[in-house]
Amino acid sequence: MTKVALLAGGDYSPPRGDFDLYIGIDRGALRLLENGFALDWAVGDFDSISEEEMTKIVSSGARIYQSPAEKNDTDTELALKLLFKTYPLAQATLFGAFGGRVDHFLSNIFLPSDPDLQPYMRQIHLANDTNFISYYPKGEHTVDTHPEMTYLAFMTDEETELSILGTKYELTAANYFKKKIYSSNEAIGKPITLTVPSGYVVVIESKD
Amino acid sequence: MTKVALLAGGDYSPPRGDFDLYIGIDRGALRLLENGFALDWAVGDFDSISEEEMTKIVSSGARIYQSPAEKNDTDTELALKLLFKTYPLAQATLFGAFGGRVDHFLSNIFLPSDPDLQPYMRQIHLANDTNFISYYPKGEHTVDTHPEMTYLAFMTDEETELSILGTKYELTAANYFKKKIYSSNEAIGKPITLTVPSGYVVVIESKD
Repeated sequence: MTKVALLAGGDYSPPRGDFDLYIGIDRGALRLLENGFALDWAVGDFDSISEEEMTKIVSSGARIYQSPAEKNDTDTELALKLLFKTYPLAQATLFGAFGGRVDHFLSNIFLPSDPDLQPYMRQIHLANDTNFISYYPKGEHTVDTHPEMTYLAFMTDEETELSILGTKYELTAANYFKKKIYSSNEAIGKPITLTVPSGYVVVIESKD
Repeated sequence: MTKVALLAGGDYSPPRGDFDLYIGIDRGALRLLENGFALDWAVGDFDSISEEEMTKIVSSGARIYQSPAEKNDTDTELALKLLFKTYPLAQATLFGAFGGRVDHFLSNIFLPSDPDLQPYMRQIHLANDTNFISYYPKGEHTVDTHPEMTYLAFMTDEETELSILGTKYELTAANYFKKKIYSSNEAIGKPITLTVPSGYVVVIESKD
């Protein structure tokens, strides 16, 4: 299992953890170098990168995948597709996914909506210092949580009747109410069982 | 038509424009007062507000709607429901909706998923200095844009085959490709026609 940190161009959030491979996405490639991290792959159209900055990226020895400026995928989607093609079992944590332009941020949140990334959703996480995002496909799951995070939220991709057991506020057939996002829930040290009848669920752990 | 500014507790973003009514949501109530704005209504559970701060809100003379701390709706949803109950034709612009906790931000983005707010989606906008969000229900629409914004993105709520005409990158039956979010599009001064077969579409205007 290859542990991979990807850094996108949103909020700068240093990759915390041990990783085998560092991938910089567009301006994220430069940020990895500037902050003393390795840069194994650099992926992007690099259209907001100066010539001098590009020289820095090239001379780092990273493998460079330059994408066309006009394309159907975002650079982050491309980077993840390249990753899973090379390492189908990779565990990918995406940093720098929050902040910045709202449309980029939302593209990141809904990465598993891309049919090519959908099979890998359990291997993708988005992280910064106050948020950690995981994805759960159709089925019954035990949800992993981080004790340092305070809040737990569940967002459905499509309309579906979730069930959530083992949290502070349980959601069952008996007390069901329809929401796109069930926010401000909390883990209470018990195993959490999430049942997803269709589509997928974005699980957001956060703290203030 | 009552023009209403609502300020939530996310990123502080001063309400820009002329408004007839100012609604502060939770910490947003305090921020309106601190920044010299009127405070007509204050809505929230105010659980992160000190006693001294609460005194400031109360003595402003604002109408106060205190919500229970544990509830199915967010304070922003409650504020909008109260607003449309009183002023069904109100034009509501929500500031302070971005930044902060990711789950709160996503709840704000998907406000029209609430069945009580769904009929009012065309009257709801989210705004800060670099992003402006509008909602379009099922049907054919001419999309209004702001010339000062550079980028235009379209996000579907549910899987549906959008058509987008009059933008830099058109999306038609002939070149259709499936995306949750069609980002990095641009207005080019022509009327934009958006066709939504089902669900609703979040239109995001942004600039760097």
